[in-house]
Amino acid sequence: MIAVLRIGHRISRDKRITTHVALVARAFGADKIFIDTKDIKLEENICSTCGRFGGKFEIKTGVNANKIAKQWSGIIVHLTMYGDELDRSIKKIDKNDDLLIVVGAEKVPSQMYAIADFNVSVGNQPHSEVSALAIFLDRYNNGKWLTKRFNGKIQILPCNKGKKVISRDK
Amino acid sequence: MIAVLRIGHRISRDKRITTHVALVARAFGADKIFIDTKDIKLEENICSTCGRFGGKFEIKTGVNANKIAKQWSGIIVHLTMYGDELDRSIKKIDKNDDLLIVVGAEKVPSQMYAIADFNVSVGNQPHSEVSALAIFLDRYNNGKWLTKRFNGKIQILPCNKGKKVISRDK
Repeated sequence: MIAVLRIGHRISRDKRITTHVALVARAFGADKIFIDTKDIKLEENICSTCGRFGGKFEIKTGVNANKIAKQWSGIIVHLTMYGDELDRSIKKIDKNDDLLIVVGAEKVPSQMYAIADFNVSVGNQPHSEVSALAIFLDRYNNGKWLTKRFNGKIQILPCNKGKKVISRDK
Repeated sequence: MIAVLRIGHRISRDKRITTHVALVARAFGADKIFIDTKDIKLEENICSTCGRFGGKFEIKTGVNANKIAKQWSGIIVHLTMYGDELDRSIKKIDKNDDLLIVVGAEKVPSQMYAIADFNVSVGNQPHSEVSALAIFLDRYNNGKWLTKRFNGKIQILPCNKGKKVISRDK
Protein backbone atom coordinates (compact mmCIF):
# COMPACT_ATOMS: atom_id res chain seq x y z
CA MET A 1 0.00 0.00 0.00
CA ILE A 2 1.31 3.39 -1.01
CA ALA A 3 -0.63 6.40 0.24
CA VAL A 4 0.00 10.12 -0.21
CA LEU A 5 -0.92 12.67 2.44
CA ARG A 6 -1.34 16.21 1.15
CA ILE A 7 -1.23 18.81 3.89
CA GLY A 8 -1.92 22.56 3.87
CA HIS A 9 -4.45 22.36 1.01
CA ARG A 10 -6.37 25.60 0.56
CA ILE A 11 -9.24 25.19 -1.89
CA SER A 12 -9.05 28.54 -3.69
CA ARG A 13 -5.28 28.72 -3.92
CA ASP A 14 -4.32 25.09 -4.39
CA LYS A 15 -7.16 23.45 -6.29
CA ARG A 16 -5.18 22.91 -9.46
CA ILE A 17 -1.90 21.97 -7.78
CA THR A 18 -3.60 19.51 -5.43
CA THR A 19 -5.50 18.02 -8.37
CA HIS A 20 -2.17 17.50 -10.13
CA VAL A 21 -0.67 15.97 -6.96
CA ALA A 22 -3.60 13.51 -6.82
CA LEU A 23 -3.30 12.66 -10.53
CA VAL A 24 0.43 12.05 -10.13
CA ALA A 25 -0.23 9.83 -7.11
CA ARG A 26 -2.65 7.75 -9.20
CA ALA A 27 -0.59 7.62 -12.41
CA PHE A 28 2.71 6.87 -10.65
CA GLY A 29 1.45 3.91 -8.67
CA ALA A 30 0.05 5.10 -5.33
CA ASP A 31 -3.19 3.48 -4.08
CA LYS A 32 -4.70 6.36 -2.17
CA ILE A 33 -4.50 10.04 -1.36
CA PHE A 34 -5.54 11.80 1.84
CA ILE A 35 -6.09 15.56 1.77
CA ASP A 36 -6.40 17.56 4.97
CA THR A 37 -9.10 19.98 3.80
CA LYS A 38 -12.59 18.81 2.84
CA ASP A 39 -12.98 19.40 -0.90
CA ILE A 40 -15.93 17.66 -2.54
CA LYS A 41 -15.21 19.12 -5.98
CA LEU A 42 -11.69 17.73 -5.92
CA GLU A 43 -13.00 14.29 -4.89
CA GLU A 44 -15.47 14.36 -7.78
CA ASN A 45 -12.77 15.35 -10.28
CA ILE A 46 -10.43 12.56 -9.27
CA CYS A 47 -13.22 9.96 -9.10
CA SER A 48 -14.30 11.05 -12.58
CA THR A 49 -10.75 10.48 -13.87
CA CYS A 50 -10.66 7.05 -12.24
CA GLY A 51 -14.07 6.21 -13.74
CA ARG A 52 -12.86 7.03 -17.24
CA PHE A 53 -9.21 5.95 -17.12
CA GLY A 54 -9.51 3.02 -14.73
CA GLY A 55 -7.42 1.70 -11.89
CA LYS A 56 -8.20 1.37 -8.21
CA PHE A 57 -7.42 4.65 -6.56
CA GLU A 58 -9.04 6.22 -3.54
CA ILE A 59 -9.29 9.83 -2.47
CA LYS A 60 -10.34 11.03 0.97
CA THR A 61 -10.48 14.72 1.83
CA GLY A 62 -11.05 16.47 5.16
CA VAL A 63 -8.79 14.13 7.12
CA ASN A 64 -6.86 14.88 10.32
CA ALA A 65 -3.30 14.80 8.94
CA ASN A 66 -1.59 14.45 12.31
CA LYS A 67 -3.80 11.55 13.28
CA ILE A 68 -3.18 9.75 10.00
CA ALA A 69 0.58 10.19 10.30
CA LYS A 70 0.65 9.14 13.98
CA GLN A 71 -1.49 6.05 13.39
CA TRP A 72 0.40 4.96 10.27
CA SER A 73 2.00 1.60 10.93
CA GLY A 74 4.37 1.61 7.94
CA ILE A 75 7.10 3.99 6.81
CA ILE A 76 6.55 7.74 6.54
CA VAL A 77 8.48 9.77 3.97
CA HIS A 78 8.15 13.54 3.99
CA LEU A 79 9.21 15.23 0.75
CA THR A 80 10.95 18.55 1.39
CA MET A 81 13.71 20.55 -0.26
CA TYR A 82 15.46 20.50 3.14
CA GLY A 83 15.55 16.72 3.30
CA ASP A 84 18.25 14.14 2.76
CA GLU A 85 19.48 13.11 -0.70
CA LEU A 86 16.93 11.21 -2.78
CA ASP A 87 19.12 8.38 -4.05
CA ARG A 88 20.67 7.77 -0.62
CA SER A 89 17.26 7.79 1.09
CA ILE A 90 15.54 5.50 -1.42
CA LYS A 91 18.09 2.75 -0.73
CA LYS A 92 17.24 2.78 2.99
CA ILE A 93 13.47 2.39 2.56
CA ASP A 94 12.09 -1.14 2.98
CA LYS A 95 9.89 -1.64 -0.10
CA ASN A 96 7.90 -4.42 1.62
CA ASP A 97 6.50 -2.00 4.15
CA ASP A 98 3.44 0.22 3.65
CA LEU A 99 4.45 3.73 2.67
CA LEU A 100 2.92 7.10 3.47
CA ILE A 101 4.36 10.01 1.47
CA VAL A 102 3.68 13.46 2.92
CA VAL A 103 3.70 16.48 0.61
CA GLY A 104 3.06 19.99 1.87
CA ALA A 105 1.74 23.10 0.22
CA GLU A 106 3.42 26.15 1.77
CA LYS A 107 5.02 25.86 5.21
CA VAL A 108 4.91 22.41 6.80
CA PRO A 109 4.57 22.20 10.63
CA SER A 110 7.83 21.17 12.30
CA GLN A 111 6.24 18.10 13.91
CA MET A 112 5.94 16.55 10.44
CA TYR A 113 9.75 16.62 10.13
CA ALA A 114 9.94 14.84 13.48
CA ILE A 115 7.23 12.26 12.81
CA ALA A 116 8.63 11.27 9.38
CA ASP A 117 11.05 8.34 9.24
CA PHE A 118 12.68 9.98 6.25
CA ASN A 119 12.73 13.63 5.23
CA VAL A 120 13.72 13.38 1.58
CA SER A 121 14.73 16.11 -0.85
CA VAL A 122 14.14 15.68 -4.56
CA GLY A 123 17.02 18.04 -5.20
CA ASN A 124 17.67 20.98 -2.88
CA GLN A 125 16.30 23.61 -5.24
CA PRO A 126 12.76 24.97 -5.12
CA HIS A 127 10.44 23.37 -7.66
CA SER A 128 7.09 21.71 -6.98
CA GLU A 129 5.37 19.10 -4.83
CA VAL A 130 3.96 17.72 -8.11
CA SER A 131 7.40 17.03 -9.59
CA ALA A 132 8.86 15.96 -6.24
CA LEU A 133 6.16 13.31 -5.83
CA ALA A 134 6.56 12.13 -9.44
CA ILE A 135 10.33 11.75 -9.23
CA PHE A 136 10.15 10.09 -5.83
CA LEU A 137 7.58 7.50 -6.98
CA ASP A 138 9.48 6.96 -10.23
CA ARG A 139 12.65 6.13 -8.27
CA TYR A 140 10.75 4.16 -5.64
CA ASN A 141 9.11 1.79 -8.13
CA ASN A 142 11.98 1.83 -10.64
CA GLY A 143 9.95 3.34 -13.47
CA LYS A 144 7.41 0.48 -13.39
CA TRP A 145 4.49 2.94 -13.25
CA LEU A 146 5.14 3.63 -16.95
CA THR A 147 3.84 0.20 -17.92
CA LYS A 148 1.10 -0.16 -15.29
CA ARG A 149 -2.26 -1.31 -16.77
CA PHE A 150 -5.33 0.61 -15.64
CA ASN A 151 -7.94 -1.13 -17.86
CA GLY A 152 -10.08 1.99 -18.13
CA LYS A 153 -12.97 2.80 -20.45
CA ILE A 154 -10.56 5.15 -22.17
CA GLN A 155 -7.17 3.87 -23.21
CA ILE A 156 -4.56 5.99 -24.96
CA LEU A 157 -2.02 4.28 -27.16
CA PRO A 158 1.47 5.73 -27.68
CA CYS A 159 1.85 7.43 -31.06
CA ASN A 160 4.26 10.02 -32.49
CA LYS A 161 1.73 11.95 -34.58
CA GLY A 162 -1.98 12.37 -33.92
CA LYS A 163 -4.02 10.65 -31.21
CA LYS A 164 -4.86 6.98 -30.79
CA VAL A 165 -7.67 6.55 -28.30
CA ILE A 166 -9.69 3.41 -27.57
CA SER A 167 -13.03 4.04 -25.89
CA ARG A 168 -15.19 1.23 -24.64
CA ASP A 169 -18.21 0.78 -22.43
CA LYS A 170 -17.72 -1.51 -19.49
CA MET B 1 20.64 25.04 -24.87
CA ILE B 2 17.44 23.63 -23.44
CA ALA B 3 14.37 25.86 -23.56
CA VAL B 4 10.80 25.23 -22.44
CA LEU B 5 7.82 26.75 -24.22
CA ARG B 6 4.67 26.95 -22.12
CA ILE B 7 1.54 27.50 -24.18
CA GLY B 8 -2.06 28.27 -23.20
CA HIS B 9 -1.09 30.10 -20.00
CA ARG B 10 -4.03 31.94 -18.45
CA ILE B 11 -2.93 34.17 -15.61
CA SER B 12 -5.82 33.68 -13.19
CA ARG B 13 -6.21 29.95 -13.72
CA ASP B 14 -2.63 28.84 -14.26
CA LYS B 15 -0.45 31.15 -12.21
CA ARG B 16 0.62 28.51 -9.73
CA ILE B 17 0.95 25.66 -12.23
CA THR B 18 2.97 27.79 -14.65
CA THR B 19 5.18 28.97 -11.78
CA HIS B 20 5.82 25.31 -10.92
CA VAL B 21 6.55 24.52 -14.60
CA ALA B 22 9.12 27.35 -14.65
CA LEU B 23 10.70 26.23 -11.36
CA VAL B 24 10.97 22.66 -12.67
CA ALA B 25 12.54 23.93 -15.89
CA ARG B 26 15.17 25.79 -13.83
CA ALA B 27 15.83 23.07 -11.24
CA PHE B 28 15.96 20.23 -13.77
CA GLY B 29 18.54 21.84 -16.04
CA ALA B 30 16.76 23.95 -18.68
CA ASP B 31 18.29 27.34 -19.54
CA LYS B 32 15.19 29.29 -20.40
CA ILE B 33 11.42 29.37 -20.42
CA PHE B 34 9.11 31.10 -22.86
CA ILE B 35 5.48 31.72 -21.86
CA ASP B 36 2.89 32.75 -24.41
CA THR B 37 0.95 35.19 -22.19
CA LYS B 38 2.53 38.35 -20.81
CA ASP B 39 2.78 37.92 -17.04
CA ILE B 40 5.02 40.40 -15.23
CA LYS B 41 4.28 39.00 -11.78
CA LEU B 42 5.37 35.53 -12.88
CA GLU B 43 8.59 36.96 -14.35
CA GLU B 44 9.30 38.74 -11.07
CA ASN B 45 8.67 35.59 -9.02
CA ILE B 46 11.00 33.46 -11.09
CA CYS B 47 13.70 36.16 -11.23
CA SER B 48 13.44 36.48 -7.46
CA THR B 49 14.04 32.72 -7.08
CA CYS B 50 17.04 32.93 -9.42
CA GLY B 51 18.39 35.92 -7.45
CA ARG B 52 18.25 33.96 -4.20
CA PHE B 53 19.02 30.42 -5.31
CA GLY B 54 21.41 31.18 -8.16
CA GLY B 55 21.97 29.74 -11.60
CA LYS B 56 21.57 31.28 -15.02
CA PHE B 57 17.95 30.94 -16.03
CA GLU B 58 15.90 33.23 -18.21
CA ILE B 59 12.17 33.79 -18.40
CA LYS B 60 10.36 35.58 -21.19
CA THR B 61 6.58 36.00 -21.18
CA GLY B 62 4.23 37.31 -23.86
CA VAL B 63 5.95 35.50 -26.73
CA ASN B 64 4.41 34.31 -30.00
CA ALA B 65 4.53 30.55 -29.45
CA ASN B 66 4.07 29.61 -33.10
CA LYS B 67 6.85 31.92 -34.19
CA ILE B 68 9.23 30.54 -31.57
CA ALA B 69 8.49 26.96 -32.58
CA LYS B 70 8.75 27.68 -36.32
CA GLN B 71 12.03 29.58 -35.97
CA TRP B 72 13.61 27.02 -33.63
CA SER B 73 16.64 25.52 -35.35
CA GLY B 74 17.10 22.55 -32.99
CA ILE B 75 14.82 19.71 -31.96
CA ILE B 76 11.27 20.25 -30.76
CA VAL B 77 9.69 17.86 -28.28
CA HIS B 78 6.03 18.26 -27.39
CA LEU B 79 5.00 16.55 -24.16
CA THR B 80 1.50 15.07 -24.42
CA MET B 81 -0.31 12.06 -22.98
CA TYR B 82 -1.09 11.09 -26.60
CA GLY B 83 2.58 10.96 -27.60
CA ASP B 84 5.02 8.14 -28.21
CA GLU B 85 6.67 6.18 -25.40
CA LEU B 86 9.13 8.16 -23.30
CA ASP B 87 12.02 5.69 -23.18
CA ARG B 88 11.79 4.91 -26.90
CA SER B 89 11.63 8.61 -27.82
CA ILE B 90 14.49 9.68 -25.56
CA LYS B 91 16.88 7.33 -27.36
CA LYS B 92 16.14 8.97 -30.71
CA ILE B 93 16.85 12.53 -29.60
CA ASP B 94 20.29 13.89 -30.48
CA LYS B 95 21.57 15.35 -27.20
CA ASN B 96 24.05 17.60 -29.03
CA ASP B 97 21.27 19.59 -30.60
CA ASP B 98 19.41 22.50 -29.01
CA LEU B 99 16.13 21.37 -27.52
CA LEU B 100 12.78 23.12 -27.23
CA ILE B 101 10.26 21.34 -24.98
CA VAL B 102 6.65 22.38 -25.47
CA VAL B 103 4.18 21.94 -22.61
CA GLY B 104 0.52 22.90 -22.90
CA ALA B 105 -2.09 23.90 -20.37
CA GLU B 106 -5.51 22.66 -21.53
CA LYS B 107 -6.04 21.86 -25.22
CA VAL B 108 -2.99 22.23 -27.47
CA PRO B 109 -3.56 23.39 -31.08
CA SER B 110 -3.13 20.56 -33.59
CA GLN B 111 -0.36 22.40 -35.45
CA MET B 112 1.88 21.89 -32.41
CA TYR B 113 1.62 18.12 -32.91
CA ALA B 114 2.65 18.63 -36.53
CA ILE B 115 5.49 21.06 -35.90
CA ALA B 116 7.09 18.92 -33.15
CA ASP B 117 9.80 16.47 -34.14
CA PHE B 118 8.72 14.25 -31.27
CA ASN B 119 5.37 14.05 -29.52
CA VAL B 120 6.32 12.29 -26.32
CA SER B 121 4.10 10.83 -23.61
CA VAL B 122 5.34 10.60 -20.06
CA GLY B 123 2.98 7.70 -19.54
CA ASN B 124 -0.43 7.62 -21.23
CA GLN B 125 -2.41 8.49 -18.10
CA PRO B 126 -3.52 12.00 -17.18
CA HIS B 127 -1.26 13.68 -14.60
CA SER B 128 0.45 17.05 -14.93
CA GLU B 129 2.64 19.14 -17.19
CA VAL B 130 4.78 19.78 -14.09
CA SER B 131 5.53 16.09 -13.54
CA ALA B 132 5.78 15.37 -17.28
CA LEU B 133 8.46 18.04 -17.68
CA ALA B 134 10.33 16.85 -14.58
CA ILE B 135 10.40 13.20 -15.65
CA PHE B 136 11.32 14.09 -19.23
CA LEU B 137 14.26 16.30 -18.15
CA ASP B 138 15.34 13.72 -15.57
CA ARG B 139 15.53 11.03 -18.28
CA TYR B 140 17.04 13.42 -20.84
CA ASN B 141 19.97 14.43 -18.63
CA ASN B 142 20.25 11.09 -16.83
CA GLY B 143 19.52 12.50 -13.38
CA LYS B 144 22.46 14.93 -13.55
CA TRP B 145 20.22 17.85 -12.52
CA LEU B 146 20.29 16.43 -8.99
CA THR B 147 23.92 17.41 -8.56
CA LYS B 148 23.92 20.66 -10.55
CA ARG B 149 25.56 23.57 -8.70
CA PHE B 150 23.64 26.84 -8.70
CA ASN B 151 25.98 28.87 -6.41
CA GLY B 152 23.15 30.96 -5.03
CA LYS B 153 23.06 33.29 -2.04
CA ILE B 154 20.96 30.61 -0.40
CA GLN B 155 22.20 27.06 -0.37
CA ILE B 156 20.33 24.16 1.19
CA LEU B 157 22.29 21.17 2.37
CA PRO B 158 20.74 17.68 2.47
CA CYS B 159 19.77 16.60 5.98
CA ASN B 160 17.36 13.98 7.42
CA LYS B 161 16.13 16.04 10.37
CA GLY B 162 15.81 19.83 10.60
CA LYS B 163 17.07 22.36 8.06
CA LYS B 164 20.61 23.19 7.01
CA VAL B 165 20.68 26.47 5.13
CA ILE B 166 23.74 28.53 4.18
CA SER B 167 22.98 32.18 3.41
CA ARG B 168 25.61 34.49 2.06
CA ASP B 169 25.77 37.92 0.47
CA LYS B 170 27.40 38.01 -2.93
